[in-house]
Amino acid sequence: QKRAPSYSNRGMTLEDDLNETNKYYLTNQIAVIHKKPTPVQIVNVHYPKRSAAVIKEAYFKQSSTTDYNGIYKGRYIDFEAKETKNKTSFPLQNFHDHQIEHMKQVKAQDGICFVIISAFDQVYFLEADKLFYFWDRKEKNGRKSIRKDELEETAYPISLGYAPRIDYISIIEQLYFSPSSGAKG
Amino acid sequence: QKRAPSYSNRGMTLEDDLNETNKYYLTNQIAVIHKKPTPVQIVNVHYPKRSAAVIKEAYFKQSSTTDYNGIYKGRYIDFEAKETKNKTSFPLQNFHDHQIEHMKQVKAQDGICFVIISAFDQVYFLEADKLFYFWDRKEKNGRKSIRKDELEETAYPISLGYAPRIDYISIIEQLYFSPSSGAKG
Ligand SMILES: [Mg+2]
Ligand SMILES: [Mg+2]
Repeated sequence: QKRAPSYSNRGMTLEDDLNETNKYYLTNQIAVIHKKPTPVQIVNVHYPKRSAAVIKEAYFKQSSTTDYNGIYKGRYIDFEAKETKNKTSFPLQNFHDHQIEHMKQVKAQDGICFVIISAFDQVYFLEADKLFYFWDRKEKNGRKSIRKDELEETAYPISLGYAPRIDYISIIEQLYFSPSSGAKG
Repeated sequence: QKRAPSYSNRGMTLEDDLNETNKYYLTNQIAVIHKKPTPVQIVNVHYPKRSAAVIKEAYFKQSSTTDYNGIYKGRYIDFEAKETKNKTSFPLQNFHDHQIEHMKQVKAQDGICFVIISAFDQVYFLEADKLFYFWDRKEKNGRKSIRKDELEETAYPISLGYAPRIDYISIIEQLYFSPSSGAKG
């Protein structure tokens, strides 16, 4: 039986596809959303004459926030993107404490906050509140992952397209801007 | 005659003060605003056994956005911080095209967008729309800077304090959230 072309088989990373999606939103004046630069601790820089400064020693730092943020119709948008090759569950160790803390702070300011998860040959939109539920369960010595069926039940599948590739704004539009909007579960 | 302690004489950078200010807002659950990491083009990374990856060659990249963004009461906040030691005017070459373009995109999505300028022994809050006026004048072969008296007329002075040091949220509150809110000039 022929399967629909899945995200994980296309040889591109989730980040590539999200960057293309954000470029589409920007060009078409739909939303202004950017990936933040990778945080780097710079230790040593050379300044050669007549050419650009060269960073000679630096280290990757853990980010204190999520990877993507921006604006859609006046509302603040904030999300993290995560992938797993795991077949049966999504491991919560993909997140670190600071990211969850940041997402809670964003929700407290009434931001639109979520995770885009690539797992089980599907891309999902999981609202931050749902993530907090699974995270808090883990913190109370519960399971350290989200089971496949739990994710299917609480998250929204995002259909993949050509342009935009991962149309997460259409989910935001339905959840937060439609007259009949209301969250899942 | 004794002068009031001025920002430029305190031996701290504008960025330091803004980072402290943002930390204060975060801790006191007033707003969630972060400085974006410096964008770096990573060329060469070593992965030594048993220790952290070392970036051996990298270059500074021009940012395609502004330095600070985040959320206050649900609204998207976006700004750039600039300093000048110039005594009579603020040079517009402090901005590059991409930053202005980004700020226009943010305004088109109904974001709260501005510049914090440290100049003439004062810190100013200049709304993006006012900046665009001066920028467009330059583009039409007008003057390449904002005169001191022009800045005084179009921008809001921010009083400096201990905590928060540069209370720009109080200006945003007056301009965008007060019943009698309305922009200057
Ligand atoms: Mg990430
Ligand atoms: Mg800057």
